[in-house]
Amino acid sequence: MRVNYDEMVSEFVRVLEKYGITGDDAKLSAKLFADASRDGVHTHGLNRFPKFIKSIQNGSVDVSKRATLSKSYGALERWDGNRGPGNLNAYIATERAMELARKYTVGVVGLRNTNHWMRPGNYAIHAAQSNMISIMWTNTVPNMPPWGGKDAKIGNNPIVFAIPVDGEVVLVDVAMSMFSYGKLEKLKMEGKMTPVDGGLDSEGNVTRDPNELLKTHQVFPTGYWKGSSMSIALDLIGAAVSGGITSTGIGSLPTETQVSQFFLVIDLNKLDNPEATAEMIKKTLEDIKSSAPLDPNSPVTFPGEGAKRIREESDRLGVYADDKVWKDVLAL
Amino acid sequence: MRVNYDEMVSEFVRVLEKYGITGDDAKLSAKLFADASRDGVHTHGLNRFPKFIKSIQNGSVDVSKRATLSKSYGALERWDGNRGPGNLNAYIATERAMELARKYTVGVVGLRNTNHWMRPGNYAIHAAQSNMISIMWTNTVPNMPPWGGKDAKIGNNPIVFAIPVDGEVVLVDVAMSMFSYGKLEKLKMEGKMTPVDGGLDSEGNVTRDPNELLKTHQVFPTGYWKGSSMSIALDLIGAAVSGGITSTGIGSLPTETQVSQFFLVIDLNKLDNPEATAEMIKKTLEDIKSSAPLDPNSPVTFPGEGAKRIREESDRLGVYADDKVWKDVLAL
Repeated sequence: MRVNYDEMVSEFVRVLEKYGITGDDAKLSAKLFADASRDGVHTHGLNRFPKFIKSIQNGSVDVSKRATLSKSYGALERWDGNRGPGNLNAYIATERAMELARKYTVGVVGLRNTNHWMRPGNYAIHAAQSNMISIMWTNTVPNMPPWGGKDAKIGNNPIVFAIPVDGEVVLVDVAMSMFSYGKLEKLKMEGKMTPVDGGLDSEGNVTRDPNELLKTHQVFPTGYWKGSSMSIALDLIGAAVSGGITSTGIGSLPTETQVSQFFLVIDLNKLDNPEATAEMIKKTLEDIKSSAPLDPNSPVTFPGEGAKRIREESDRLGVYADDKVWKDVLAL
Repeated sequence: MRVNYDEMVSEFVRVLEKYGITGDDAKLSAKLFADASRDGVHTHGLNRFPKFIKSIQNGSVDVSKRATLSKSYGALERWDGNRGPGNLNAYIATERAMELARKYTVGVVGLRNTNHWMRPGNYAIHAAQSNMISIMWTNTVPNMPPWGGKDAKIGNNPIVFAIPVDGEVVLVDVAMSMFSYGKLEKLKMEGKMTPVDGGLDSEGNVTRDPNELLKTHQVFPTGYWKGSSMSIALDLIGAAVSGGITSTGIGSLPTETQVSQFFLVIDLNKLDNPEATAEMIKKTLEDIKSSAPLDPNSPVTFPGEGAKRIREESDRLGVYADDKVWKDVLAL
């Protein structure tokens, strides 16, 4: 079914206020959930909303808390999320990194002790709308074996890159597993297999069955040993910069909370020749899109182009919503 | 064969001085080449050295030039490589990013108009030896199709992450293609196949044959669509920050030169509780290594552990050198 964007936001606001997030914060949190669904990232939009409410109920998320500055170190700051709502904390950290970037051209915020930020693209798009580049990532509960191992010891640690260009955004939003658990849940819901090998089943064989992967947690890192290594690097850097804990520490908690996040923002407005830079980016994207496609019916796109197309569709037809999940939210 | 490290450095110095890189610069450049081979990265050490000399001869590298500051923007600076030697320029940029990090905690240098930096791990290890984290990458000539395309329109844009811990370094050094061309050349030299699917052959079939991949340039991005997207993001960010050109621009030049590079350094010495951070990193690495291995004879290692083992072996037995390449260098 399709739900009007404003209606979806209002409904989220209603439920959030019931669970203790009120006023402007409720509006912002609702907008962040609705924006994810609007751009087609249902796993971290509508579909995640009931789980977020559960994380308030089970005490992982403390609705009364927000991120606070721990200490400033020039162009880099450490913030404590105080286990507040992950999306509001991430938004605060993004705004602060943007502020640092306005002053120092580059700004870094390390945010510890926070919660799942839902869709990272939201924060990167927010920075891009002020003509800023961003690189941001989070660690997660251990949910993937390191390369060569059997036990889920490392996180899939999603990372997002955003580059603004002429009112558009080049947006890369990837987990360090070949398939995120959100994606696997979506495929399971749709009764589909993963399009490439996804990991190992309970007998140690390579599988594309999301049901198996959701059971074994033996998902392949993206690019095998490369994603495994990158996941470890992101985890260590995020925890070291924020003064927070790594996936190892998160794994010892009863639920996924106290995650560490990293926000890097670069203010393009401060640099010389912004027109030349924008022109170069546009030409590069055009050149990439001009590549002969492997499948004549699927022209090559740039990262973020799909999200933009879905956003336009959502604004025309309403935001796609899974019937059951939408009913669940209405009943909350 | 095995060559004594100091002998290898001396030999490189002798050749470099003959081709116009003299004094301390010859020593540093020689050390950077020898360090790569010493750590097992032969593709960017000894094996690359003759190609580097050729790039001086064909004019891609101007031995009389070094990187110079274009403009300072607080914690971020733009530098021009003036098409000087890539490894010396990258070392200058690293030192400068470290200097900025000492002042602002985080420092970024965008370096444009430079040349191939050989082994990126060298610069990251250099920063790590001063207890600094680094993230650095370069763009390259287009050598890989974007996901869904046939034409090599994007670079494999290697990225390196380094985290210091207790005199060791967690080091991730990965190209955005599943296999770098250096690795493919090594496999070809050894008569081996790629361990996982490497890309498409001339008939559009998936192949593991390095000979085919070196011909078609249809290598898979690491993690398929994910590596394709990350490659594009790294290219755009590196070029935008440095004021340089993207892979598209490099592709229009007669040889691979004028590349854009990005150096981010974070000074851990400035942050509070460094002992707790080091302890947390150590515990995390121990936990990762404790994962039950898929192959009982191959315990799980942390990124950079292999390089360290090879370094120790090189110091004990001499640096591994391909007979033919070593003879070629002696004859230069």
